[in-house]
Amino acid sequence: MQIDHAHLLSFLLLLGLIIAAAKAAGWASLRLGQPAVLGEILAGVLLGPSLLNVLEWPLFRGAGLGPVVAHLANLGVLFLMFIAGLETDLGQMRRVGRVAAYAGTAGVFVPLGLGLLVALPFGYALQTGVFFGIVLAATSVSITVQTLIELGQLESREGTTLLAAAVIDDVIAIVVLSVFVALAGAGGGGLAGAGIVAVRMAAFLAAAVALGAWGLRRALVRSQRVPVSEGLLAFTVVAVLLYAWGAEALGHVASITGAYIAGVLVTEAGFREEIEHRLRAFTYAILVPVFFVSIGLQTDIRMLAMRDLPFAVLVIVAAVAGKVLGCGGGALAGGFSRAEALRVGVGMVSRGEVGLIVAGIGLGSGLLDARGFAVAVLMVLVTTLLTPVLLRATFPGRPLTEAEAVARVMGEEDG
Amino acid sequence: MQIDHAHLLSFLLLLGLIIAAAKAAGWASLRLGQPAVLGEILAGVLLGPSLLNVLEWPLFRGAGLGPVVAHLANLGVLFLMFIAGLETDLGQMRRVGRVAAYAGTAGVFVPLGLGLLVALPFGYALQTGVFFGIVLAATSVSITVQTLIELGQLESREGTTLLAAAVIDDVIAIVVLSVFVALAGAGGGGLAGAGIVAVRMAAFLAAAVALGAWGLRRALVRSQRVPVSEGLLAFTVVAVLLYAWGAEALGHVASITGAYIAGVLVTEAGFREEIEHRLRAFTYAILVPVFFVSIGLQTDIRMLAMRDLPFAVLVIVAAVAGKVLGCGGGALAGGFSRAEALRVGVGMVSRGEVGLIVAGIGLGSGLLDARGFAVAVLMVLVTTLLTPVLLRATFPGRPLTEAEAVARVMGEEDG
Repeated sequence: MQIDHAHLLSFLLLLGLIIAAAKAAGWASLRLGQPAVLGEILAGVLLGPSLLNVLEWPLFRGAGLGPVVAHLANLGVLFLMFIAGLETDLGQMRRVGRVAAYAGTAGVFVPLGLGLLVALPFGYALQTGVFFGIVLAATSVSITVQTLIELGQLESREGTTLLAAAVIDDVIAIVVLSVFVALAGAGGGGLAGAGIVAVRMAAFLAAAVALGAWGLRRALVRSQRVPVSEGLLAFTVVAVLLYAWGAEALGHVASITGAYIAGVLVTEAGFREEIEHRLRAFTYAILVPVFFVSIGLQTDIRMLAMRDLPFAVLVIVAAVAGKVLGCGGGALAGGFSRAEALRVGVGMVSRGEVGLIVAGIGLGSGLLDARGFAVAVLMVLVTTLLTPVLLRATFPGRPLTEAEAVARVMGEEDG
Repeated sequence: MQIDHAHLLSFLLLLGLIIAAAKAAGWASLRLGQPAVLGEILAGVLLGPSLLNVLEWPLFRGAGLGPVVAHLANLGVLFLMFIAGLETDLGQMRRVGRVAAYAGTAGVFVPLGLGLLVALPFGYALQTGVFFGIVLAATSVSITVQTLIELGQLESREGTTLLAAAVIDDVIAIVVLSVFVALAGAGGGGLAGAGIVAVRMAAFLAAAVALGAWGLRRALVRSQRVPVSEGLLAFTVVAVLLYAWGAEALGHVASITGAYIAGVLVTEAGFREEIEHRLRAFTYAILVPVFFVSIGLQTDIRMLAMRDLPFAVLVIVAAVAGKVLGCGGGALAGGFSRAEALRVGVGMVSRGEVGLIVAGIGLGSGLLDARGFAVAVLMVLVTTLLTPVLLRATFPGRPLTEAEAVARVMGEEDG
């Protein structure tokens, strides 16, 4: 693993540039009354191949820094979802279980249907059309989580429902994806393979929860007493990494879902404050900005040919409408008011990295061509940019400053 | 910067493995009465090409994870040196200025002479012999800093002297390296080039300190008030990254020296507590263990041919004796007692990543052959492993637990 020392150096400059750009853009975004996360993603678009293309600057070109940024960004989204798990009130989540199940289920099948409906008139085969629908069924609430934290609404009834519905959505969407890839023969396993996937998902989720309920508290207490520096945090980080890895590698669930479950379990074990206190600052100062910027760094918005624009616009409309109508309709059917249901639907619009992963599977297995993939990437970017704006418009209040957000959390803990 | 999603996943497992191995080995090391850092480096040797060779396991092979580990490790050593800077008492450093200047200067020239003396009888040319001496003149106090923190001695008179002497050592050694490479014609610049290097070093150090004294406090206050999340820490991290990058890219000083200076300046600006509080946990739980393990991951101790062993043993003896006699002798001449001078000398024995960088420059410019490079790498590893053991033997007391170390720092701040 010898590495050119000059590459180590140039990464320091790149990382400084990314963090500075993210925070400056986040601040500008707040001044315009929008959530900071919107500015941070736009900073990535600015730095990425669409405009400035920093990774190809002579200073950075050939240093292989793209993958390093991607790995740091991946740690960022995992810790973000872990912190969301820490902040989850499991009692409240049980109370919203029924409505979340409705929202999560309808939130998969309505976008799936709309995606198919949009793709067929544009000359795509039935198989590709269904796959487009599956791409639209994916969801990633990491952007929503960040926005709700800024709005001070993560622990609201809608916020809790969103998080529960996202887990259900993730599980159903991946079952559908696995069954479809198996049926289309691209995955190699056939229907039996899809059955195995479903069994592995169930086994992983059961084992993850059982392990957390059984030994986590004792292990955390133990790691706190070991005299190595930061034993408690080190143990927790290892647990988060293994849960995230295991979720996808063993259980076929998204790795962010694994990290989220780890957070819920740590809070249930009574270690929320100690861990959040230690992890939060570094995560929000460094890793999360890298994640938001990396979304733009991965995307070249100019690659979309003009002739694809009508199709792309329709796909984006279907993506937004599918989640708002599906999740929102599900929430309405589950007993939420119209305003609450709209907020839940809007919060599920963002596809984030999960959408990119599903589109990547399509490209890799030949179920999606390069043109379809480009449209999918644009859809992910636009829905991700829209989500903070839509949440800001539908939730009451204005973005909180960090100090206010902290004060609110502390106040709740006292009460 | 598209990256295979499977590589992101396997990195999670590798990172979890590295942190778990480091902390477990650190704990075992403490139980044997040795500093934890010794165990953490040995964990890296165990995981590295010398024994288990994890990076070549089927799970990780071909995923390009080596550079990612190296970049995280580099962030780890920079934050470690930044925290050492935060903990530096500039008043006390001024009081030890004279003795540190003696120790730092003699600590360059004595190892240089010993290295030359050892290399010549083994058939190396004069030029290569001098370069061997320069490799032995390098120093890296990152391992010493960590060990002194564990021993509760970082802010002792010897600890402060060590840190000041290390900065002086770094500057002199790099001037000598630059002049020599220029004279040997390998760097291309000739003696004029070496002059330019010296001017750039002086200009960088003056500009870095002036910038810190002039605007840092105002900038930190400002960044604290900006309503983005963790604005103060984000700004500080950007400053550390730019100081570390600028030190080497603009000023020809080691990047760890730049990070250390940034820490001294932040403490002088009155922000020590706020920053250390936010940065410490993550740095010690994740980045620093990755740094210590990465030292072993970079080293294959089996690559040393048996016929090189006598030479390697002599080089290691010269490396240890050079620093103990040079730095220790300098400290003695500066007025320290024998016990104090011995501690200063022992603390400078570790060559760490700075030794590897200098050896790499030698290999790249043809001043060192592959055999000489292998010996230099072994010397770095052995001196790095020896340093915690020697410090433990020469400083009073036993390794503190984290809780005791924190209590001590808090107590000092109250007093």
